[in-house]
Amino acid sequence: MTANQTPTLKVSKSTRIGWIGTGVMGRSMCGHLIEAGYQTTVYNRSPEKSDELVACGATRVASPADVARSSDVVFTIVGFPSDVESVILGADGVLAGASPGCVVVDMTTSKPSLAVEIDRRARQVGVHSVDAPVSGGDLGARNAALSIMIGGDAVVVDAIDPLLRLMGKTIVHQGPAGSGQHTKMVNQTLIAAGMIAVCEGMLYAEKVGLNVETVLQSVSSGAAGSWSLSNLAPRMVAGDFEPGFYVEHFIKDMGIALDEAARVNLCLPGLALAHQLYQAVAAQGNRKKGTQALLLALKKLNGTESQ
Amino acid sequence: MTANQTPTLKVSKSTRIGWIGTGVMGRSMCGHLIEAGYQTTVYNRSPEKSDELVACGATRVASPADVARSSDVVFTIVGFPSDVESVILGADGVLAGASPGCVVVDMTTSKPSLAVEIDRRARQVGVHSVDAPVSGGDLGARNAALSIMIGGDAVVVDAIDPLLRLMGKTIVHQGPAGSGQHTKMVNQTLIAAGMIAVCEGMLYAEKVGLNVETVLQSVSSGAAGSWSLSNLAPRMVAGDFEPGFYVEHFIKDMGIALDEAARVNLCLPGLALAHQLYQAVAAQGNRKKGTQALLLALKKLNGTESQ
Repeated sequence: MTANQTPTLKVSKSTRIGWIGTGVMGRSMCGHLIEAGYQTTVYNRSPEKSDELVACGATRVASPADVARSSDVVFTIVGFPSDVESVILGADGVLAGASPGCVVVDMTTSKPSLAVEIDRRARQVGVHSVDAPVSGGDLGARNAALSIMIGGDAVVVDAIDPLLRLMGKTIVHQGPAGSGQHTKMVNQTLIAAGMIAVCEGMLYAEKVGLNVETVLQSVSSGAAGSWSLSNLAPRMVAGDFEPGFYVEHFIKDMGIALDEAARVNLCLPGLALAHQLYQAVAAQGNRKKGTQALLLALKKLNGTESQ
Repeated sequence: MTANQTPTLKVSKSTRIGWIGTGVMGRSMCGHLIEAGYQTTVYNRSPEKSDELVACGATRVASPADVARSSDVVFTIVGFPSDVESVILGADGVLAGASPGCVVVDMTTSKPSLAVEIDRRARQVGVHSVDAPVSGGDLGARNAALSIMIGGDAVVVDAIDPLLRLMGKTIVHQGPAGSGQHTKMVNQTLIAAGMIAVCEGMLYAEKVGLNVETVLQSVSSGAAGSWSLSNLAPRMVAGDFEPGFYVEHFIKDMGIALDEAARVNLCLPGLALAHQLYQAVAAQGNRKKGTQALLLALKKLNGTESQ
């Protein structure tokens, strides 16, 4: 079968699910599918991270290819594009084990160009590919309230919609292969300079002697308001720099967005500045902190002592 | 009387209101006080801009000093710090006409250092000064839904609270003289890099071939969400670059914030970048457009033709 012979894709209660990547996000998301009654096969590089799902009824196997051999729809959500490449395109990857008609859905935030390449390689073996990165974090994953940004063929995206609805609330098909990843890059670009804004606003307030919490009462709900301000500024005030969303993952995402922008000849000075400032966050040893740790870097930049 | 002799300040229905600056914002705000039944005296540099308020019952006089002579509480909301200086501290300004015990409330977005200077000069003649800039725009002014950020003595701020409640919804006393202006500078700093984020996100989306409106469905309500994204991105998509909030006023505000930041030895690279990019907006002839016109400047920067 080739991708031109559109299959009669349909998800039913007997659809066999595969899940690769059972970190903080993947564990919650896969858990919703298991709870809904789907027979599920899981793989994770560190096997112990899938213990919880196995206890809930999932079957653990030894490789991504083995997952694909037992599944009709395989989801992947791993760390970096190199991991995506390995678990899908590698010698022991999903495409090595998948039967024609299988659907592979990569939910990692990864390169749009890699999503296009996966789609091309999947078509060669009669497999359907969808890129479907998410936004909403750990909490969104737990509450099945993620925003899922989707690239791929409409017929395939429609077919897996009942599964996506078990994990997300805002589910939007953005276009052909790579469009989900591109949309996620827009999302990260919005967050990037937005985080500079939040940290600089707080730094200014502190430095001129205002009470930052009182300032937040004035500025949070108006034209200066943002998700980052409402959700991360209070953590910064409380001195809480735990992730949330890891600095190192955000740096990866901004790097991808800048690469893609360069590829299409696009100058994005705010994104570039954010990328550089987050490099400073990493340089200061805060790679594993939450993205709100940008405040610490800006404080150091300004010679202010901080934790 | 000096400021040390705290007066028994109290607003009653017989409190006489003065209003200086009847532009788009001032007209709506003053209108609420007149509607509430307060006897009101108005002044505007271009007298015809107060016609509407005069028709509603306000008395027009020939100078800021004349306003002060007929008023217990004088509000000012004019264009630039130089205008504030002129209408309050000038030869024919509010302090030249005000009686001891009078309160002058500057609602212009202006320099914190000027607010401190006005407070000092006001105390010398027994007048109370409050800085109370607002956020919320034309719509917030019309709907009495402004955020009002206040600096001044608590007893004075409390006394005029019933008047402020006729104009705003979020009314927060931030500290001594200048604190209202400093809080507004935080507000503008938050908006500044945030606007870069919004425009760059949209530019990326367009350039890689996504449908920007569909992208907004995915990104608006999550971690990338902001007031600017929800309210200004749709205008940009529609090609609507009318103000809203004028580019030239925003440049003024960012300039003040950068000056104040420099005064306290604070490096704010995102704010500085935004300030420079908005200089480009102005350089391209869009000084009188709305702040969303930053998108046009970033398009030109990228060699993309635009209106």
